[in-house]
Amino acid sequence: MTSRPIAVAPDTRPAMYEAMCRAVAAGGGRLVEPADADGLVWADPAGVDSFPEVVANAQNLEWIQLPYAGIEPFAHHLDDRWTWTCGKGVYAPAVAETALGMILAGQKHLHGYSRATSWSDPVGRVLAGSRITVLGGGGITGHLLPLLAPFGCDVTVVRRREEAFSGADRTITTGRLFEVLPRTDVLVVALALTAETTGIVGVAELAALPDHAWLVNVARGGHVVTEDLVEALRSDSLGGAALDVTNPEPLPDGHPLWSEPRCLITPHVANTPEMGLRLLEPFVAENVSRFCSGDVLLAPVDVALGY
Amino acid sequence: MTSRPIAVAPDTRPAMYEAMCRAVAAGGGRLVEPADADGLVWADPAGVDSFPEVVANAQNLEWIQLPYAGIEPFAHHLDDRWTWTCGKGVYAPAVAETALGMILAGQKHLHGYSRATSWSDPVGRVLAGSRITVLGGGGITGHLLPLLAPFGCDVTVVRRREEAFSGADRTITTGRLFEVLPRTDVLVVALALTAETTGIVGVAELAALPDHAWLVNVARGGHVVTEDLVEALRSDSLGGAALDVTNPEPLPDGHPLWSEPRCLITPHVANTPEMGLRLLEPFVAENVSRFCSGDVLLAPVDVALGY
Repeated sequence: MTSRPIAVAPDTRPAMYEAMCRAVAAGGGRLVEPADADGLVWADPAGVDSFPEVVANAQNLEWIQLPYAGIEPFAHHLDDRWTWTCGKGVYAPAVAETALGMILAGQKHLHGYSRATSWSDPVGRVLAGSRITVLGGGGITGHLLPLLAPFGCDVTVVRRREEAFSGADRTITTGRLFEVLPRTDVLVVALALTAETTGIVGVAELAALPDHAWLVNVARGGHVVTEDLVEALRSDSLGGAALDVTNPEPLPDGHPLWSEPRCLITPHVANTPEMGLRLLEPFVAENVSRFCSGDVLLAPVDVALGY
Repeated sequence: MTSRPIAVAPDTRPAMYEAMCRAVAAGGGRLVEPADADGLVWADPAGVDSFPEVVANAQNLEWIQLPYAGIEPFAHHLDDRWTWTCGKGVYAPAVAETALGMILAGQKHLHGYSRATSWSDPVGRVLAGSRITVLGGGGITGHLLPLLAPFGCDVTVVRRREEAFSGADRTITTGRLFEVLPRTDVLVVALALTAETTGIVGVAELAALPDHAWLVNVARGGHVVTEDLVEALRSDSLGGAALDVTNPEPLPDGHPLWSEPRCLITPHVANTPEMGLRLLEPFVAENVSRFCSGDVLLAPVDVALGY
């Protein structure tokens, strides 16, 4: 392995900048200015505007590592002069933890007890043996199923492709969703958001779930039709909902979901910046090391497809 | 197996009384009045006062089955004229689920977000790889460790006996507690309450924990010195506390813990009556069957140790 010159930019988020500089060093890279760099680690997901300026003089640039999984903000900068990688898959373990935390919170009524200021009646269900349906067969599901395994739940994964998902009791294609909804205790949404999956949980799907069922969304707010969810909760036809993502997002003050007793909302924090850096740093170090060695890079972005 | 005469008393909690009568029948016992009974199934955890009266005329009584795992209310009635069994281990799977739910709620700030009525800043830690210290090497710990296993945590079990606890990364005796507290991210209390363990988490133990550490108590309120906990939370020297049990219990209205932002209180519901009877009924049936057959009984109480 030869050490190669890698830049980290911008430096607008100090904690992230420092973590990425450490990652470059840990991966065997040599930290340089962008103008001298073969590789560039982008260190501020919000600071996309300065990107053209940063790369303007980077004549030798071959590779750009983007932070986070969703690269939408960079979409108009994608250019196949360079090899792009991102953070997809990096955060799945953290999101899976949040999903299990939300599942258990629902079963144990933790959202309700958190709001109580007085000793109250016992409420709660045993998760062990429950029937869990997970929409999506990607990285989050791959990390959630092992966390669920010790509970001996009956797990159905619903995915686009006809291919068994490892660790699931059964895998079905999206077209058969309504077969499993009536025997679902917890419905977990862990999909990528595409035109096909937007609004995949609406009035019909919510009505098909048993009245005690919980909805857990750790994917994107657009998967769930918010008005339909509000109505299902209001009319007692759903056990509850735990949402790390909402539509609209941020959820505006005064929205009915804020005052819904059976709704737990977390503000898109399945991975927080602190968690994120802890996971991203070793991942970027690995990609730097691979870049220096000329190995295949992790999490490549397909410039043509845009993800 | 011969059928033997078994009494169920008192009848003050109808659902429990009926479940225990069914358990006696299912186990092959013959339901009789206490005066004629060889065995007695106690059917109201709260109704201890009537115990002396119920057993006063039970000349043939050999065995008493107590409900629930904690037998403190019966401590002053324990008497080695009789063989005592309790519900220890029965509720452990449900309590372990609640313990993990509370651990995750603390790490993901679910208690705080449950109270929010507005989109707020990201808070939260990754549980994977955390250092967990569990006080107690009983049934709850035995069920909690497998649930924690997929998180790859570093788990220390602290117990009275010098004997490795299966699934723990290390087991230490209680005398060495202060060695592990400073490197504990989550301290779980899962002990039986005895004279020795009352107040085991007090000012010194709380001070020895890192400032970000969480305390999770799913055992008995008396294990934690409440005033010391209130002070630790108030002074920012503890990350938070999730308590399924409190001292006093029920926690009175207006108690400072109700308004503590980093405290999640559930009203002793790690097993709810619904969960509890579902688990206790087959367990008592099994013990009735063992009693009739002269087999070793499950969950014996050591009258000398008091648990």
